[in-house]
Amino acid sequence: MLTLHTWTTPNGRKIPIMLEELGLEYDILAVDIGKGEQFTPEFLAMSPNNKIPALEHVDADGNKLTIFESGAILQYLAEKTGQLLPAAGPARYQVLEWLHWQIGGLGPMFGQLGFFALRSEEKSPLAIDRFVEEADRLMGVMDKQLSKHPYIAGAQYSIADIACYPWAVAARDKLKPAVGDKLADKPHLNRWLDMIGARPAVQRGMALPKVD
Amino acid sequence: MLTLHTWTTPNGRKIPIMLEELGLEYDILAVDIGKGEQFTPEFLAMSPNNKIPALEHVDADGNKLTIFESGAILQYLAEKTGQLLPAAGPARYQVLEWLHWQIGGLGPMFGQLGFFALRSEEKSPLAIDRFVEEADRLMGVMDKQLSKHPYIAGAQYSIADIACYPWAVAARDKLKPAVGDKLADKPHLNRWLDMIGARPAVQRGMALPKVD
Repeated sequence: MLTLHTWTTPNGRKIPIMLEELGLEYDILAVDIGKGEQFTPEFLAMSPNNKIPALEHVDADGNKLTIFESGAILQYLAEKTGQLLPAAGPARYQVLEWLHWQIGGLGPMFGQLGFFALRSEEKSPLAIDRFVEEADRLMGVMDKQLSKHPYIAGAQYSIADIACYPWAVAARDKLKPAVGDKLADKPHLNRWLDMIGARPAVQRGMALPKVD
Repeated sequence: MLTLHTWTTPNGRKIPIMLEELGLEYDILAVDIGKGEQFTPEFLAMSPNNKIPALEHVDADGNKLTIFESGAILQYLAEKTGQLLPAAGPARYQVLEWLHWQIGGLGPMFGQLGFFALRSEEKSPLAIDRFVEEADRLMGVMDKQLSKHPYIAGAQYSIADIACYPWAVAARDKLKPAVGDKLADKPHLNRWLDMIGARPAVQRGMALPKVD
């Protein structure tokens, strides 16, 4: 049995999308980070960095495996099912390149942009300018890659697309007051956003976890 | 033949350490990011995000594979050799958890700390406080994990240690003016720093690339 502990954030939505794409059965439990639920001892035992998402897998013999970090969870599910990450060869490492690019670049930099431009009451123009510029640069890297390939890691849909998509949606929606019109001049990124967003599993995953 | 394009930064030193641990033959080319050498068309063709490191592998038939992103390169080398990343099972995902934790947390947050606290002439107390606090939190997460396990991902030395080590060294050395004494009260992290730093391959890798 799979149990996903997650929230309605970009990192939190990668795993519901993946699970929906794979058609796996799972339970989903909301960890309301607005209420600090990621700091409970139960959650900390699964996720020593106090961040969502975390995945529990209990096998038929009752052995429990827990995994934190969205990138590690995506790889676990891909390797468990043999889907959305080639098992070997250049295509495998193209997916891992772009997965790590999202984990180390797109995610943290957009996250900092959200803090400095939107969430922080005190404003630092130095920090806002830095992260707006970096967000624009990163979207430009995606746009260029998507000008040459249908998907972010090449010819095939993969966990790299799933990792990047909720962050690109954030740039279009929640981060829009900070990003401004910098997404508008990225036609290939917009084409990809529409294409990925049209997938039924992505639509279902982006609506999770359901909260009041 | 393996050719590594890298520089004397924490991300840049992960791969020399890995190659030295594996005892593989390789060429190393310095990409001086102080001179903007990461922006040449030749380097961009390998690394579309304009960041070091990048690895080229040309096989006996002349087929060339290039990989960017340090996390993807570490996984490639581990999977190619069957070393420092278990092929399956819980231990594999413990390594990937901590690898992704470094890629998405320790690296980007320490990188931002370096910019705001040390490299930027303009100072933003908001940003400096944020990243000093986050650096302390992340070192605390490492310290707690290392209080329970000899290595960052558990009982065995792995690519997760290799990924974290040059960043922990940065906290001790280059980032010390910003980090202050926050490393001193992390005994398990200090124990691990000494242990990893005593490995001959780590010492050789940390001295690369050689520059004038």
